[in-house]
Amino acid sequence: MANQYAQLSAVFYALADPTRCAIVSRLGRGPETVSTLAAPFAMALPSFMKHLSVLERSGLIRSNKVGRVRTCELVPAPLSEAQRWIAEQRATWEARSDRMAAFVENLHQEELSDVQPKRRPR
Amino acid sequence: MANQYAQLSAVFYALADPTRCAIVSRLGRGPETVSTLAAPFAMALPSFMKHLSVLERSGLIRSNKVGRVRTCELVPAPLSEAQRWIAEQRATWEARSDRMAAFVENLHQEELSDVQPKRRPR
Repeated sequence: MANQYAQLSAVFYALADPTRCAIVSRLGRGPETVSTLAAPFAMALPSFMKHLSVLERSGLIRSNKVGRVRTCELVPAPLSEAQRWIAEQRATWEARSDRMAAFVENLHQEELSDVQPKRRPR
Repeated sequence: MANQYAQLSAVFYALADPTRCAIVSRLGRGPETVSTLAAPFAMALPSFMKHLSVLERSGLIRSNKVGRVRTCELVPAPLSEAQRWIAEQRATWEARSDRMAAFVENLHQEELSDVQPKRRPR
Protein backbone atom coordinates (compact mmCIF):
# COMPACT_ATOMS: atom_id res chain seq x y z
CA MET A 1 0.00 0.00 0.00
CA ALA A 2 2.71 2.46 1.02
CA ASN A 3 5.12 1.67 -1.87
CA GLN A 4 3.47 4.12 -4.23
CA TYR A 5 4.85 6.89 -1.98
CA ALA A 6 8.53 5.79 -2.13
CA GLN A 7 9.63 8.24 -4.86
CA LEU A 8 7.60 11.06 -3.35
CA SER A 9 9.13 10.36 0.07
CA ALA A 10 12.64 10.73 -1.39
CA VAL A 11 11.70 14.20 -2.65
CA PHE A 12 10.14 15.21 0.69
CA TYR A 13 13.19 13.82 2.51
CA ALA A 14 15.45 15.95 0.29
CA LEU A 15 13.37 19.02 1.23
CA ALA A 16 13.31 18.09 4.93
CA ASP A 17 16.31 20.23 5.78
CA PRO A 18 16.68 24.04 5.90
CA THR A 19 20.00 24.01 4.01
CA ARG A 20 18.57 21.87 1.20
CA CYS A 21 15.43 24.06 0.98
CA ALA A 22 17.70 27.11 0.67
CA ILE A 23 19.73 25.40 -2.08
CA VAL A 24 16.57 24.54 -4.06
CA SER A 25 15.39 28.12 -3.62
CA ARG A 26 18.72 29.49 -4.89
CA LEU A 27 18.80 27.13 -7.90
CA GLY A 28 15.29 28.26 -8.85
CA ARG A 29 16.97 31.52 -9.95
CA GLY A 30 19.41 29.64 -12.21
CA PRO A 31 22.33 27.16 -12.29
CA GLU A 32 25.19 27.83 -9.91
CA THR A 33 28.65 26.48 -9.16
CA VAL A 34 29.11 24.45 -5.96
CA SER A 35 31.50 27.01 -4.45
CA THR A 36 29.06 29.91 -5.03
CA LEU A 37 26.17 27.83 -3.68
CA ALA A 38 28.16 26.87 -0.58
CA ALA A 39 29.40 30.41 0.20
CA PRO A 40 26.40 31.63 2.30
CA PHE A 41 26.47 28.54 4.56
CA ALA A 42 28.66 28.30 7.66
CA MET A 43 29.45 24.68 6.86
CA ALA A 44 32.48 22.60 5.83
CA LEU A 45 32.47 21.76 2.12
CA PRO A 46 32.18 17.95 2.67
CA SER A 47 28.99 18.52 4.74
CA PHE A 48 27.62 20.81 2.02
CA MET A 49 28.44 18.19 -0.64
CA LYS A 50 26.40 15.62 1.33
CA HIS A 51 23.36 17.91 1.09
CA LEU A 52 23.91 18.26 -2.67
CA SER A 53 24.18 14.49 -2.91
CA VAL A 54 20.81 13.99 -1.15
CA LEU A 55 19.20 16.53 -3.50
CA GLU A 56 20.76 14.87 -6.55
CA ARG A 57 19.62 11.36 -5.51
CA SER A 58 16.05 12.61 -5.09
CA GLY A 59 16.12 13.97 -8.65
CA LEU A 60 15.53 17.58 -7.51
CA ILE A 61 18.87 18.78 -8.87
CA ARG A 62 21.48 17.57 -11.35
CA SER A 63 25.12 18.56 -11.60
CA ASN A 64 27.78 18.64 -14.28
CA LYS A 65 31.56 18.95 -13.86
CA VAL A 66 33.65 20.85 -16.40
CA GLY A 67 37.34 20.81 -15.51
CA ARG A 68 37.44 21.43 -11.77
CA VAL A 69 34.14 23.33 -11.61
CA ARG A 70 30.91 21.52 -10.74
CA THR A 71 27.70 23.34 -11.64
CA CYS A 72 24.26 22.45 -10.23
CA GLU A 73 20.83 23.11 -11.68
CA LEU A 74 17.25 22.56 -10.52
CA VAL A 75 15.10 19.83 -12.09
CA PRO A 76 11.51 21.05 -11.74
CA ALA A 77 9.63 17.76 -12.41
CA PRO A 78 9.95 16.28 -8.88
CA LEU A 79 8.79 19.61 -7.41
CA SER A 80 5.73 19.42 -9.68
CA GLU A 81 5.02 15.87 -8.50
CA ALA A 82 5.29 16.88 -4.84
CA GLN A 83 3.06 19.91 -5.41
CA ARG A 84 0.48 17.77 -7.25
CA TRP A 85 0.36 15.23 -4.39
CA ILE A 86 -0.10 17.94 -1.73
CA ALA A 87 -2.79 19.62 -3.86
CA GLU A 88 -4.65 16.28 -4.14
CA GLN A 89 -4.64 15.79 -0.35
CA ARG A 90 -5.92 19.32 0.20
CA ALA A 91 -8.60 18.91 -2.48
CA THR A 92 -9.83 15.67 -0.86
CA TRP A 93 -9.89 17.37 2.55
CA GLU A 94 -11.68 20.46 1.20
CA ALA A 95 -14.28 18.40 -0.68
CA ARG A 96 -15.04 16.59 2.58
CA SER A 97 -15.25 19.87 4.51
CA ASP A 98 -17.67 21.25 1.89
CA ARG A 99 -19.84 18.12 2.19
CA MET A 100 -19.76 18.44 6.01
CA ALA A 101 -20.75 22.13 5.81
CA ALA A 102 -23.62 21.32 3.41
CA PHE A 103 -24.78 18.49 5.71
CA VAL A 104 -24.76 20.77 8.78
CA GLU A 105 -26.59 23.49 6.84
CA ASN A 106 -29.26 20.96 5.72
CA LEU A 107 -29.62 19.75 9.29
CA HIS A 108 -30.06 23.34 10.46
CA GLN A 109 -32.73 24.01 7.78
CA GLU A 110 -34.56 20.80 8.71
CA GLU A 111 -34.54 21.78 12.38
CA LEU A 112 -35.93 25.22 11.47
CA SER A 113 -38.71 23.70 9.35
CA ASP A 114 -39.47 21.23 12.19
CA VAL A 115 -39.78 24.12 14.62
CA GLN A 116 -41.84 26.48 12.44
CA PRO A 117 -44.87 24.20 11.82
CA LYS A 118 -45.19 23.65 15.59
CA ARG A 119 -45.30 27.41 16.12
CA ARG A 120 -47.83 28.11 13.38
CA PRO A 121 -50.88 26.46 15.07
CA ARG A 122 -50.57 28.64 18.19
CA MET B 1 19.68 32.36 6.25
CA ALA B 2 18.40 28.82 6.53
CA ASN B 3 16.31 29.38 9.70
CA GLN B 4 13.27 30.57 7.77
CA TYR B 5 12.95 26.99 6.47
CA ALA B 6 12.89 25.28 9.89
CA GLN B 7 9.06 24.94 10.18
CA LEU B 8 8.76 23.95 6.52
CA SER B 9 11.48 21.32 6.97
CA ALA B 10 9.52 19.75 9.83
CA VAL B 11 6.51 19.35 7.51
CA PHE B 12 8.63 17.90 4.69
CA TYR B 13 10.32 15.57 7.18
CA ALA B 14 6.90 14.37 8.34
CA LEU B 15 6.00 13.63 4.69
CA ALA B 16 9.37 11.98 3.98
CA ASP B 17 8.06 8.49 4.70
CA PRO B 18 5.65 6.31 2.69
CA THR B 19 3.67 5.28 5.80
CA ARG B 20 3.20 8.89 6.89
CA CYS B 21 2.20 9.96 3.35
CA ALA B 22 -0.39 7.17 3.35
CA ILE B 23 -1.72 8.32 6.76
CA VAL B 24 -2.07 11.93 5.54
CA SER B 25 -3.81 10.66 2.42
CA ARG B 26 -6.25 8.59 4.51
CA LEU B 27 -6.99 11.45 6.92
CA GLY B 28 -7.80 13.72 3.97
CA ARG B 29 -11.00 11.67 3.67
CA GLY B 30 -11.93 12.37 7.31
CA PRO B 31 -10.92 11.75 10.95
CA GLU B 32 -10.10 8.18 11.91
CA THR B 33 -9.30 6.18 15.05
CA VAL B 34 -5.71 5.04 15.53
CA SER B 35 -6.66 1.35 15.31
CA THR B 36 -8.52 1.83 11.99
CA LEU B 37 -5.64 3.91 10.62
CA ALA B 38 -3.08 1.29 11.67
CA ALA B 39 -5.01 -1.71 10.26
CA PRO B 40 -3.67 -1.61 6.64
CA PHE B 41 -0.02 -1.44 7.77
CA ALA B 42 2.07 -4.53 8.54
CA MET B 43 3.63 -2.80 11.52
CA ALA B 44 3.66 -3.13 15.32
CA LEU B 45 1.44 -0.53 17.00
CA PRO B 46 4.35 1.22 18.81
CA SER B 47 6.10 1.79 15.45
CA PHE B 48 2.87 3.11 13.99
CA MET B 49 2.39 5.43 16.99
CA LYS B 50 5.88 6.88 16.33
CA HIS B 51 4.80 7.83 12.81
CA LEU B 52 1.67 9.51 14.23
CA SER B 53 3.85 11.34 16.72
CA VAL B 54 6.11 12.72 13.94
CA LEU B 55 3.03 13.87 12.02
CA GLU B 56 1.54 15.48 15.14
CA ARG B 57 4.77 17.32 16.01
CA SER B 58 4.93 18.76 12.47
CA GLY B 59 1.39 20.12 12.89
CA LEU B 60 0.03 18.06 9.96
CA ILE B 61 -2.37 16.10 12.19
CA ARG B 62 -3.91 16.46 15.63
CA SER B 63 -5.40 13.79 17.85
CA ASN B 64 -7.91 13.59 20.65
CA LYS B 65 -8.49 10.78 23.14
CA VAL B 66 -11.98 9.96 24.40
CA GLY B 67 -11.97 7.07 26.87
CA ARG B 68 -9.61 4.52 25.35
CA VAL B 69 -10.11 5.62 21.76
CA ARG B 70 -7.70 8.10 20.13
CA THR B 71 -8.96 9.80 16.97
CA CYS B 72 -6.71 11.62 14.49
CA GLU B 73 -7.59 14.35 12.02
CA LEU B 74 -5.73 16.23 9.31
CA VAL B 75 -4.75 19.90 9.82
CA PRO B 76 -4.62 21.41 6.32
CA ALA B 77 -2.67 24.64 7.06
CA PRO B 78 0.85 23.10 7.04
CA LEU B 79 0.01 21.35 3.73
CA SER B 80 -0.99 24.73 2.30
CA GLU B 81 2.29 26.26 3.48
CA ALA B 82 4.32 23.44 1.90
CA GLN B 83 2.34 23.71 -1.34
CA ARG B 84 2.84 27.51 -1.40
CA TRP B 85 6.61 27.17 -0.95
CA ILE B 86 6.93 24.57 -3.74
CA ALA B 87 4.75 26.72 -6.02
CA GLU B 88 7.03 29.71 -5.36
CA GLN B 89 10.17 27.75 -6.31
CA ARG B 90 8.53 26.50 -9.50
CA ALA B 91 7.30 30.00 -10.38
CA THR B 92 10.82 31.44 -9.93
CA TRP B 93 12.26 28.65 -12.08
CA GLU B 94 9.59 29.05 -14.77
CA ALA B 95 9.99 32.85 -14.90
CA ARG B 96 13.72 32.32 -15.45
CA SER B 97 13.06 29.69 -18.16
CA ASP B 98 10.68 32.10 -19.90
CA ARG B 99 13.32 34.87 -19.79
CA MET B 100 15.91 32.43 -21.15
CA ALA B 101 13.58 31.35 -23.99
CA ALA B 102 12.87 35.01 -24.86
CA PHE B 103 16.60 35.77 -24.82
CA VAL B 104 17.40 32.83 -27.13
CA GLU B 105 14.57 33.81 -29.46
CA ASN B 106 15.87 37.42 -29.63
CA LEU B 107 19.37 36.15 -30.34
CA HIS B 108 18.00 33.95 -33.13
CA GLN B 109 16.09 36.89 -34.66
CA GLU B 110 19.20 39.10 -34.46
CA GLU B 111 21.30 36.42 -36.18
CA LEU B 112 18.68 36.13 -38.94
CA SER B 113 18.64 39.91 -39.50
CA ASP B 114 22.50 39.91 -39.52
CA VAL B 115 22.51 37.18 -42.18
CA GLN B 116 19.78 38.56 -44.46
CA PRO B 117 21.42 41.92 -45.36
CA LYS B 118 24.59 40.06 -46.39
CA ARG B 119 22.59 37.86 -48.75
CA ARG B 120 20.63 40.66 -50.38
CA PRO B 121 23.54 42.29 -52.30
CA ARG B 122 24.35 39.05 -54.18
